[in-house]
Amino acid sequence: MLILFAAPALWPDYETILPQALAEAGLSARIVTEAADPAAVDYIIYAPSAPLQDFTPYTSCKAVLSLWAGVERIVGNTTLTQPLARMVDPGLTEGMVEWVVGHALRHHLGMDRHIVNPGHVWNPTCPPLARQRPVAMLGLGALGLAAARALQALNFPVTGWSRTAKEVPGLTCLSGEAGLREALARAAIVVTLLPRTPETENLLNARTLGYLPRGAFLLNPGRGPLIDDAALLAELDSGQIAHATLDVFRVEPLPPDHPFWSHPGVTVTPHIAADTRPHSAARVLVENIRRAEAGEPLLHLVDRNRGY
Amino acid sequence: MLILFAAPALWPDYETILPQALAEAGLSARIVTEAADPAAVDYIIYAPSAPLQDFTPYTSCKAVLSLWAGVERIVGNTTLTQPLARMVDPGLTEGMVEWVVGHALRHHLGMDRHIVNPGHVWNPTCPPLARQRPVAMLGLGALGLAAARALQALNFPVTGWSRTAKEVPGLTCLSGEAGLREALARAAIVVTLLPRTPETENLLNARTLGYLPRGAFLLNPGRGPLIDDAALLAELDSGQIAHATLDVFRVEPLPPDHPFWSHPGVTVTPHIAADTRPHSAARVLVENIRRAEAGEPLLHLVDRNRGY
Repeated sequence: MLILFAAPALWPDYETILPQALAEAGLSARIVTEAADPAAVDYIIYAPSAPLQDFTPYTSCKAVLSLWAGVERIVGNTTLTQPLARMVDPGLTEGMVEWVVGHALRHHLGMDRHIVNPGHVWNPTCPPLARQRPVAMLGLGALGLAAARALQALNFPVTGWSRTAKEVPGLTCLSGEAGLREALARAAIVVTLLPRTPETENLLNARTLGYLPRGAFLLNPGRGPLIDDAALLAELDSGQIAHATLDVFRVEPLPPDHPFWSHPGVTVTPHIAADTRPHSAARVLVENIRRAEAGEPLLHLVDRNRGY
Repeated sequence: MLILFAAPALWPDYETILPQALAEAGLSARIVTEAADPAAVDYIIYAPSAPLQDFTPYTSCKAVLSLWAGVERIVGNTTLTQPLARMVDPGLTEGMVEWVVGHALRHHLGMDRHIVNPGHVWNPTCPPLARQRPVAMLGLGALGLAAARALQALNFPVTGWSRTAKEVPGLTCLSGEAGLREALARAAIVVTLLPRTPETENLLNARTLGYLPRGAFLLNPGRGPLIDDAALLAELDSGQIAHATLDVFRVEPLPPDHPFWSHPGVTVTPHIAADTRPHSAARVLVENIRRAEAGEPLLHLVDRNRGY
């Protein structure tokens, strides 16, 4: 079996771990970072930032396994006709949950005024309890659902929203335009964890941000284009949005002159909410190779029509 | 039944709620904030900050019900011979869990460098996962245990420690001096949630802070005197402790000239980690009155020998 690891920048992270994970699964494979004969490649492990863009010569390739959760940069590649699987890495999910819960609690507890308190103000005003702070979770994929569950465990009342209707035990799930309005109208904190598709671009815009109660907090660890930047800045200036903590941006690294950097109502985190963790990711890659070899359906297969 | 509400400053919070909670429990009582005839008082609801210090005249009083979790300021009062119950308020516990988890995640994720980032530095270094960040929970009472459970739910490996040995399913529990050393030696984050007793005063001192791995984080939402302030400042200066977030102090409000205010390694929160919440606290008070009237044992009875 020949595996092409087509993500040169990430190879050092996987060089030791991936062969180990294959051996543990009883799979015998040769891994290369460049294929002399593309037609001999059985599987491609891929990052959208990689040079490989033309999948046409990989005529025997049984699957392309993305190292990224977001596949918007490859899903439209018409040369990619093989089954494509997204990365759903338990380590990535854990990291995302930690980021979402941490920043939700940060805003909930009003930490910033204690972290930066040059006047040494002692004001023992107690915040409300989390059970009094409703959260809207926009996106109910693996990441959104895990974050919603963790927030619920801390008593935050969570309303989930997805573009198409979903049913999740123990979670109020809304969908569609009317559902979005309802989810936002009751939210003190809104979290965007949707895939980037033409339908989700600018989902939070001047109109939808207006559905939120005044003074809401926004967390975006999903994708930069989910938010209309100019509309968000206007709503921050007006006080409609109290604070936005953003991990993802239309251009990354966030350009030095972008107003998000200096706006007092914005915290920038540098795309760290969910990083693929090589140890757990390698096990996911290997499990999919094992499934393909055994003729079982792949995990986390991308639906080309939906785009994720 | 006559109830003396001996916490004048808190009366406005309970004026409506407490009679409601009594009525819901089917208890008929008159509540006063001053007793013309102390011998007629059946129950005293009490805060240590209240003027009442001599309990001798309350000869018919069946129980003193504290509004505070910490009773160190009354447990040594020799005129108080009636059963004394601490407040274990589910709202207080929830608030404490939120504070502990929030600040643990804040340190874990290194949030401060994103919250205050005047140089607009984009450094996408990913923090480790919570499962790689061990926590020592010093104190396994209602609050410590609830906080430990919430941290475990987020995958933090938690080691519990208490002065006297405890067994808690699913939690490694250590005790005594050797146990303290072992718990601290493996901790990246240490949380102090012990009662204040002569035995716990200065529990964290130059010697015990030295047991921690270099660069540990300290959270103290318990009691100010658990920590030797001068030793902590020295360990912060040396880098042994990376950061301390403190909610409680030997003198409160923290005096304006105290070095904690201006030390870059200290975050001061103004005793907000756990506030008694009138709604849930009123139900706890009423449940104890119901129990006393029914001859059932009181909840959260203070052991005068242990001091809590």
